[in-house]
Amino acid sequence: MRPAYSERPQLVVEPVARLIEEFSRLPGIGPKTASRLTFFLLRAEPELAHGLAQALHDLKDQVRLCQRCFNITVEEFCPICLEPSRDQSVICVVEEPLDLLAIERTGAYRGLYHVLHGHIAPLDGVYREHLKIDELIARLRTEAVDEVILATNPNTEGEATAYLILKDLVPLGVRATRLARGLPTGGDLEWADIDTLGAALEGRREL
Amino acid sequence: MRPAYSERPQLVVEPVARLIEEFSRLPGIGPKTASRLTFFLLRAEPELAHGLAQALHDLKDQVRLCQRCFNITVEEFCPICLEPSRDQSVICVVEEPLDLLAIERTGAYRGLYHVLHGHIAPLDGVYREHLKIDELIARLRTEAVDEVILATNPNTEGEATAYLILKDLVPLGVRATRLARGLPTGGDLEWADIDTLGAALEGRREL
Repeated sequence: MRPAYSERPQLVVEPVARLIEEFSRLPGIGPKTASRLTFFLLRAEPELAHGLAQALHDLKDQVRLCQRCFNITVEEFCPICLEPSRDQSVICVVEEPLDLLAIERTGAYRGLYHVLHGHIAPLDGVYREHLKIDELIARLRTEAVDEVILATNPNTEGEATAYLILKDLVPLGVRATRLARGLPTGGDLEWADIDTLGAALEGRREL
Repeated sequence: MRPAYSERPQLVVEPVARLIEEFSRLPGIGPKTASRLTFFLLRAEPELAHGLAQALHDLKDQVRLCQRCFNITVEEFCPICLEPSRDQSVICVVEEPLDLLAIERTGAYRGLYHVLHGHIAPLDGVYREHLKIDELIARLRTEAVDEVILATNPNTEGEATAYLILKDLVPLGVRATRLARGLPTGGDLEWADIDTLGAALEGRREL
């Protein structure tokens, strides 16, 4: 994996080799990028490395999950659950906190959320009990919710997760919806893949 | 710069926003990558974030420059200066510690090094006094050196830096050399840029 540094390890002093190693554990950062970042930090003002280190500590020490929707927060509840103006009758179910942020950026949604923290992936050992599904069902039993938007990703794992949750929603009599599938805005019909184009045809709307 | 997060800053809790911000200060890491890394660390075991934080602290606390050649080290002298088998009569002058590692990986060099820590760049405020040039001249006055290889980068700044050092070497009577310019091994003549092909022609060798 890292021939560049394992060939002559004695040349790269231990703290440098270790930071390269730690950076390489992050997704999308290979040994080359890790080494570039490390040597950049070596040259930079110490405040940069220390600031990053402090932010890393604070992230794990201060951030926790909202008691109600499992969004990330520093309080007991997240900023969205604490906002009284949100529509309390709709819950949008997403896989990750980043998905929640993406939906918030549209400005088109004013309801609540529920963050599953993952999707069903039996091959990776992620089963129903690893997701916040039971917690969602518990919410639906106590909160007056009319609609659950199953906004898991539009891929195989996301679909599987949505259908697994749907099975639990049916006996509760809660209306379940899924985000529309179709052509991406600004996209080019010619370049759309067949699944997307098929979904766009199937979901066509009256003008 | 970061419309995604400045639009509704109250949604991204402070420790998350700050780590995204700190990651974004690193070269080649934009706000999207910074946010992906942050949310990955949020989900990951705490050891990952804490290990990275510790490595960042250790880098700035433990790593210093070799008293002789200014390569990075954790001791007074660097591993290369401490290796008695190295040829003490040749000094290879490089811009950065990473360049030294690149040359070491070839296995084709057994002499000493001198790391300048940069190149002449007047527009960025980097002048002769910011580089370890005086320290190189001082070494040449006390060490028995026959040859100085000016291995600065083969670009405008590297050339300017090499010629600036060359002016100081002439009165000392030390032999100065520069790395060969030519076609990269495994490259394609058809795709070589005109400067490279010109240098390859000019530096052609008898077979």
